[in-house]
Amino acid sequence: MWSKNKLTEILKIAYPIIQGPMSGASTPALVAAVSNAGGLGSLGAAQMSPDQIRNSIVEIRSLTKNPFAVNLFVPENNNKPSKEMINHANKILNSFRKKLDIELSPDLKPLPFTFNEQLNVILEEKVPIFSFTFGIMSAEIIKQVKDKKIIVIGTATTTREAKLLEQTGVDIIVAQGSEAGGHRGSAADTQIEGALIGGMALIPQIVDHVNIPVMASGGIMDGRGIAAALVLGASAVQMGTAFLTCRESGIHQQYREKLLASTDESTRLTRSFTGRYVRGINNQFIEEMKTHQESILPHPWQRFLTRDIVSAATQQKNTEFMPMWSGQAASLCREISASDLISKLIEEVNKVIKNF
Amino acid sequence: MWSKNKLTEILKIAYPIIQGPMSGASTPALVAAVSNAGGLGSLGAAQMSPDQIRNSIVEIRSLTKNPFAVNLFVPENNNKPSKEMINHANKILNSFRKKLDIELSPDLKPLPFTFNEQLNVILEEKVPIFSFTFGIMSAEIIKQVKDKKIIVIGTATTTREAKLLEQTGVDIIVAQGSEAGGHRGSAADTQIEGALIGGMALIPQIVDHVNIPVMASGGIMDGRGIAAALVLGASAVQMGTAFLTCRESGIHQQYREKLLASTDESTRLTRSFTGRYVRGINNQFIEEMKTHQESILPHPWQRFLTRDIVSAATQQKNTEFMPMWSGQAASLCREISASDLISKLIEEVNKVIKNF
Repeated sequence: MWSKNKLTEILKIAYPIIQGPMSGASTPALVAAVSNAGGLGSLGAAQMSPDQIRNSIVEIRSLTKNPFAVNLFVPENNNKPSKEMINHANKILNSFRKKLDIELSPDLKPLPFTFNEQLNVILEEKVPIFSFTFGIMSAEIIKQVKDKKIIVIGTATTTREAKLLEQTGVDIIVAQGSEAGGHRGSAADTQIEGALIGGMALIPQIVDHVNIPVMASGGIMDGRGIAAALVLGASAVQMGTAFLTCRESGIHQQYREKLLASTDESTRLTRSFTGRYVRGINNQFIEEMKTHQESILPHPWQRFLTRDIVSAATQQKNTEFMPMWSGQAASLCREISASDLISKLIEEVNKVIKNF
Repeated sequence: MWSKNKLTEILKIAYPIIQGPMSGASTPALVAAVSNAGGLGSLGAAQMSPDQIRNSIVEIRSLTKNPFAVNLFVPENNNKPSKEMINHANKILNSFRKKLDIELSPDLKPLPFTFNEQLNVILEEKVPIFSFTFGIMSAEIIKQVKDKKIIVIGTATTTREAKLLEQTGVDIIVAQGSEAGGHRGSAADTQIEGALIGGMALIPQIVDHVNIPVMASGGIMDGRGIAAALVLGASAVQMGTAFLTCRESGIHQQYREKLLASTDESTRLTRSFTGRYVRGINNQFIEEMKTHQESILPHPWQRFLTRDIVSAATQQKNTEFMPMWSGQAASLCREISASDLISKLIEEVNKVIKNF
C-alpha cells in the first residue's frame, strides 16, 4: 500500500501528503482542513508574533483533532546593516514607493519579537510536529524540541545539507527541489548556483545518503507528481503551490488569478523582496530590481525594509509590486477545497499505479 | 507492460531508453551497444564534418542492425562578431592560454562546413532517426527529413517550445529538465531565467499540452528515475550522463573520475565555453569567467574561440580548464558496459514497479 510507510507512522497521518507551510496562505482553516482529510497541515509561523502563533494553534486545535505542523525559520546572524547600506537600499526602493504613493525612506524596523519567543510557544503548546527552513538548526534546539515529544522536520536543498540535518537529530527531511515555490531552504553557507537541484536528481541522491525518511517537495501538483516522488524513493510529498488556490488558503484574489493563468515560464528566483532567494511569479519589482542587486540587504533585513511596499501593493491590488510565491507547475493549480484536493490526489495516485 | 507504448513503436525499439547524443562521448561503439541492447543510441554529430558523420554512420551500421539516431544543432543566425569583440574576448581568454602555454589571440575560425552539408549526409544515408537541439527547426527542414521516412525528435525546455515543435511536425519531443547535463536545448528567444524548469514540473506540463509522445531528460540515472518519468506522463527517457561513464563512452579518464567523484552540488551552468548555457562540472575556467560575462561571444563563436583552450586542456589532462558536461545526478554514475547498464535499468524499473 503506497500510502503507508515509516513516515506516515511517525507523523500519525493516513496519507503521505503534507501541505507546505506558507506565510499568510496557510490559515488555521487550511491547516485543519488538510489534517482532517488525512494529510498533514502546516502553519507557516515564521512571520507571526508569539501571540499570533498561540492563537493560531488554539484555532487549529478547535478545528481538528489530527496532527499538524508549525514552521519557523532558522535564525540568522546577520547584523543590522550600516546606515549607508540602509540609505542606499531605500534610495532604490523609493522608486517603487513613489509609484505606490507611500512614505519614502522609512526606518528599518525589525520584528518586535525573537525566534526564542516564537519557539517557546511551540514548546509550551507541545505542537505535534515542528518543521524548520533555512538550513541547519542547532542540535541543542532539536533536542529541546524532541524532549517535548515533538516530531522535527528539517529542510535540505542538497545532499550535504540533508546529511548535516540527520546529524542534528531531525526525524524527517524535506528534499526541496529547484522547482519549489517560496524561499529556498538552503543553509547559510550553501551556494545557490550549486544548490538549485531538480527533484529528479535531488530526491534519489538524498534518499541514498540518509537513513531517515525523506519528503519530496518542488513542482508536485497532482497524483503523477506524488507517484513520481514515491518511486524516486521519497516516503511522502510536501506540496505548497497546489494548496495556494484552495478555498481555505489566505491569498488574495489577484495573486490567485496570476497562479491560475501562469505557465511553466512564469516564475523567477529573486533576492529582492527578502534578501534570500525565493521563487515567485515574475513582475515589475523583480525585473527592475535585477539591476540593483548590490543594494539588497541580507535576510531578514531586506524583508523588513520592503514590508511597506509589499503591504501597500497588496492593499492596492498591484500585482507588479507584490510577492506572489509560486512553484514551477502552478499551471496545474485547482480551485477547490483542500479536502476535495486531497481526495482527488489519492484517486489520481491510485490511477497512476493501476496504469503503470 | 511499461516498456511498450506508442513511442517505442514509432522508434521500433524494445525499451523506452534513449542514450542522449553527446559530442565526443557518443562513439559509434556506444551508440551501437545501446541500440543492440534494445535502447536507442544517438550520435552527437553537431561538431562533426560531413565525412566524419558519414563514416560514423557506416561504422554504427556495421555494429548494429537496430535503429539509431543522429543529432545536429539548429543553426543560429548570429553574425560573426566584430574585430573589437573578438579582441576583447581573446584578451580575457589569453590568461588561460598563458597558463596552458599555447599561442595567444588566435584567429576566430568557423567550422569548415555548413549545417546543410551535415544535414545532407543524414538525408543521403537515410538514418532511421534524426534528433535536434537548440529550439525550433523550420517546418520546411522537418518536412524534407520526414519525406525520407526519417523519424524526427525535437528538444524543448518549456511548454511553449514543445507546442511550437509539435506545430513544425516533429514526431517526438524531448522534455529537457533543468537537471540535464550539457547544453540547454532552448530556442533562441527563450529566456534562461524562466526556462530552467525541473523535470517534476516540466514533464507533466509538456505532456498535458502536446499530442505527440514525450521523452523525459535531466537527472535520470537509474530505474527510479525512469519509473518517475513514466508516471509523470513521459513515454520514454533520454539519459546522457548515465552513459558517460560506460566503457564504450569516448570521454577521457580525468573527466570520468570527476563524474564518479561528484556530488549534487558539483555542476554549474555556464556560457563561457560556447556562448550558450551548458551544464558541466565546476572548475577554474567557469569560476574565473564569471566576472567576464560581457566578453563572451554569441554561440557558436565563443565555442570556436575557446577550441584551442579546450583542446590543450584535454591534452594536458587539466580538468580546471576543460569542459566536463554533466547532469545534476552524476554521483549515481556507474562504470559498466552500456549493455550491462541497460539490463540493470530494466531490472531496476521492474523492481520499483513491484514495490510500489
